[in-house]
Amino acid sequence: MTPSARDRLARIATQLADRLGLGVPLPSADEPLPPSRLPESPALLARFIDHTLLKADATPADVQRLCDEARRFEFHSVCVNSSHVARCAWRLEGSRTTVCAVVGFPLGAMSVEATAFETRSAVRDGATEIDTVLPVGMLRGDDPQAVLDDLRAIVQAAGTAAVKVILETAMLSDDQKVAACLLARMAGARFVKTSTGFGGGGATTEDIELMRHAVGGALQVKASGGIRSRDDALRMIAAGATRLGTSASLTIVGADTPEAPGTY
Amino acid sequence: MTPSARDRLARIATQLADRLGLGVPLPSADEPLPPSRLPESPALLARFIDHTLLKADATPADVQRLCDEARRFEFHSVCVNSSHVARCAWRLEGSRTTVCAVVGFPLGAMSVEATAFETRSAVRDGATEIDTVLPVGMLRGDDPQAVLDDLRAIVQAAGTAAVKVILETAMLSDDQKVAACLLARMAGARFVKTSTGFGGGGATTEDIELMRHAVGGALQVKASGGIRSRDDALRMIAAGATRLGTSASLTIVGADTPEAPGTY
Repeated sequence: MTPSARDRLARIATQLADRLGLGVPLPSADEPLPPSRLPESPALLARFIDHTLLKADATPADVQRLCDEARRFEFHSVCVNSSHVARCAWRLEGSRTTVCAVVGFPLGAMSVEATAFETRSAVRDGATEIDTVLPVGMLRGDDPQAVLDDLRAIVQAAGTAAVKVILETAMLSDDQKVAACLLARMAGARFVKTSTGFGGGGATTEDIELMRHAVGGALQVKASGGIRSRDDALRMIAAGATRLGTSASLTIVGADTPEAPGTY
Repeated sequence: MTPSARDRLARIATQLADRLGLGVPLPSADEPLPPSRLPESPALLARFIDHTLLKADATPADVQRLCDEARRFEFHSVCVNSSHVARCAWRLEGSRTTVCAVVGFPLGAMSVEATAFETRSAVRDGATEIDTVLPVGMLRGDDPQAVLDDLRAIVQAAGTAAVKVILETAMLSDDQKVAACLLARMAGARFVKTSTGFGGGGATTEDIELMRHAVGGALQVKASGGIRSRDDALRMIAAGATRLGTSASLTIVGADTPEAPGTY
């Protein structure tokens, strides 16, 4: 971590502890884990990928195809809207691929009670990962306690399912991104994630590095939004991402070109 | 209604009744009501407007300002995400402006159980109108029964609150728009509405006319998406819209120009 990054992190951690009335410093972010080794084969790269289909007009047949692709290439998960979770869990029975549900998506402006309900419902339907959207308006409105309360409610509703907090980085300043990472960590989330793919912008290596430093070794980092090629994917992993959200998964593992799969 | 519009409506009503296994024709759409008289003053035009703020990063202060503007100009409602409903109901106490909540918004791909929960929660928080998104993927996947079941669940959850069904017209063919209108009517919705504002496209006079014919006199029609000026607003009303969703409400009633309000 550079001295300036360390200074920013310390400054924001102090401000947050003060705003939250904690009376004690926030747990200091650990030195981040070293970056993952770059995956040496498409099969290893596939394990980083949440194979994603979130479009409003996705049909059940589209979702079924997504699942079959994920099963074949052993993507880490399929990432879908909550109306498709049960269908995916059924279709992926017995595979290595899990089901990841987005909730309160993509605006992060649904009431926390409804988002918690959607979370419980998705977990009951078979989701083992929950991607929720940071209440960006609360953060921008300078109410970190409200953000923390909301995130905690979702983590609690998720039970044993891992929660990823989507920051929607395009809407935040760097200081706000760091604050969001600290709040996600305090709330018990397991990942921070860059983007919904619906709010403009997308993953950048700068943001991945920033987020990795802010969460230290405690949380994983998911890069999402605009990851279209194997090069994009490898750059994100080199910067510190441990998971990738993309709908270009087949291209990324070389499965839609004549040469593939099997070699990059 | 032109003969070709009448023919299309009859054809789709027959197809739907068959697909739904009804055994009887759908209730034939009545001749639509005559268009509303064009409002002769900004004050009358204001009563057509759902003063809208749905951006992910809207802060509580932004929402408060929205309410205060709505109270001052007597807009029909404020239209907000569900996390803001209670705040709006409180802020608008004693005014002529009601609270309209969007649910399952903007993708219409949230599980129906979660959307129904969000609906009940919004009504309890003070919303008297619920704008829900048609499950577009189900309609495009040719499953009208699933669409109807979902919409009925939301109408039931809304209780006495009026439900508007957002078609997201940019994603549908004209035949699908007509089918969606018939399904919304069968489900007991009180409005059909063109667009979320997040899915590309927006209200067109052609779509308003099409929807008006499809719902007849039974339902109202809300135009939304891309309504930026008084001329846009009046064109939509002339085409048959009885409600307008817009964030340019102040411009439309002439309140952000030196001359206004009071005259166009």
